[in-house]
Amino acid sequence: MNTPGQPPAGFEPVNRGGPYFRQLGPVYVQGDVLGLFIAESHTNNYGIAHGGMLATLADGALNMVLQRVRASGERLVTVHLSTDFLAAARLGEWLQAHVQVGRQGRQLGFAECRLQVGSREVLRANGVFAVTTTPG
Amino acid sequence: MNTPGQPPAGFEPVNRGGPYFRQLGPVYVQGDVLGLFIAESHTNNYGIAHGGMLATLADGALNMVLQRVRASGERLVTVHLSTDFLAAARLGEWLQAHVQVGRQGRQLGFAECRLQVGSREVLRANGVFAVTTTPG
Amino acid sequence: MNTPGQPPAGFEPVNRGGPYFRQLGPVYVQGDVLGLFIAESHTNNYGIAHGGMLATLADGALNMVLQRVRASGERLVTVHLSTDFLAAARLGEWLQAHVQVGRQGRQLGFAECRLQVGSREVLRANGVFAVTTTPG
Amino acid sequence: MNTPGQPPAGFEPVNRGGPYFRQLGPVYVQGDVLGLFIAESHTNNYGIAHGGMLATLADGALNMVLQRVRASGERLVTVHLSTDFLAAARLGEWLQAHVQVGRQGRQLGFAECRLQVGSREVLRANGVFAVTTTPG
Repeated sequence: MNTPGQPPAGFEPVNRGGPYFRQLGPVYVQGDVLGLFIAESHTNNYGIAHGGMLATLADGALNMVLQRVRASGERLVTVHLSTDFLAAARLGEWLQAHVQVGRQGRQLGFAECRLQVGSREVLRANGVFAVTTTPG
Repeated sequence: MNTPGQPPAGFEPVNRGGPYFRQLGPVYVQGDVLGLFIAESHTNNYGIAHGGMLATLADGALNMVLQRVRASGERLVTVHLSTDFLAAARLGEWLQAHVQVGRQGRQLGFAECRLQVGSREVLRANGVFAVTTTPG
Repeated sequence: MNTPGQPPAGFEPVNRGGPYFRQLGPVYVQGDVLGLFIAESHTNNYGIAHGGMLATLADGALNMVLQRVRASGERLVTVHLSTDFLAAARLGEWLQAHVQVGRQGRQLGFAECRLQVGSREVLRANGVFAVTTTPG
Repeated sequence: MNTPGQPPAGFEPVNRGGPYFRQLGPVYVQGDVLGLFIAESHTNNYGIAHGGMLATLADGALNMVLQRVRASGERLVTVHLSTDFLAAARLGEWLQAHVQVGRQGRQLGFAECRLQVGSREVLRANGVFAVTTTPG
């Protein structure tokens, strides 16, 4: 059981991402898994985590893992992200992002991310990423 | 030509969305079109708009328009969102969200959203939405 | 009004695609628009056009148009296809595929396709395509 | 090792699906796994399996498994299918479809399908399905 606001043992605060990702507030990492507590700043009109917030966390986790997997110095951009919203993530819940790396080609990489609260699947995201020398 | 920070004529500040959407900062609306200026708080490590931020704006625009189109009192949740990232949106640029409503059934609705900087397409998002009585 | 089995004026039989696409039976083309009549061989257990058949037509239309738009000799493969199924296409109906070309980069191209029976939208498909020198 | 044209032990010919699915030719099933040999009738201009054929197999596998999982008598339609094309499937190869069932709600169900040739992932498909009383 977690102490509210205390991540599970082994999770350390993550120090990465640009300004928009960092706005999620404290995000924690253990190996390839990201985690955070749903705060009020993450919610929509219904008081549950906003879909865009979930997509932001998934995209951040996918990029973090792919940067480790790909050759150093490669710069990846998200080309496509398909997101299925399976269930709500509620205020105070501990949400984890698990990435599974798919085929990595010379120009393109595939990977998917699942967001879960315990065993409840909240989001599945499938991403296509491209290696680029120039952004955008 | 826009004065930096001044939206095009006819756009009014929008006052909607929950905490996560409002974190985008000043968002403007004219009819069914949303718009905002890319601020530093929207950017990723490369200094361009974060994909999650673009998805958040698209999701917000889709929900705003569908709430108008659907029967009053219906509560919609995003079931699926497919997002193609076509080009970058850069610091200071004026980004607009245009929604096109697709088929609306009793239980499900379809709609798509394009984000554009002038004539440059930045994002295409296709969404599937479900009418629900209970959130999540 | 169409004579059953007779395509609208201006549509000519198309002579392209490999074995799987040609199995759709007579497909017609006018400019960038493909069309066909829903035959029994296209149907699923419910007697309406199978989703895979609709995806096949959309993918074929997207590839046809992109081959025209891209530099000659470039070889394109479908990397991602997102398909929303909006409505049924029924036996005997004339179904048209309309492509809208999105951003074309050096390595990647974006395009979308809508399948329609008259004004009824049947499918929206968003595709991401990659230029490749080696198949698969 | 497979005898060409002979499915692995335990796979039996499947006898389901409407006319379009059956056009795939002999499809085999073992538990929740479908399999087939890539035939020339499945190929595109490049001599590899057509994307629409892969989507057809995935959609068929998803529907088969969901029909077993959902209450008897429920009728499911595909609302959305996102397909990532990771690698080619070549003439003569034995291709298997593996389904993983996601959250099943009262009105909507989620599931994903992977197509593989041995350990090579060929396609990932994420589907959203709706319970319906009237087709289309």
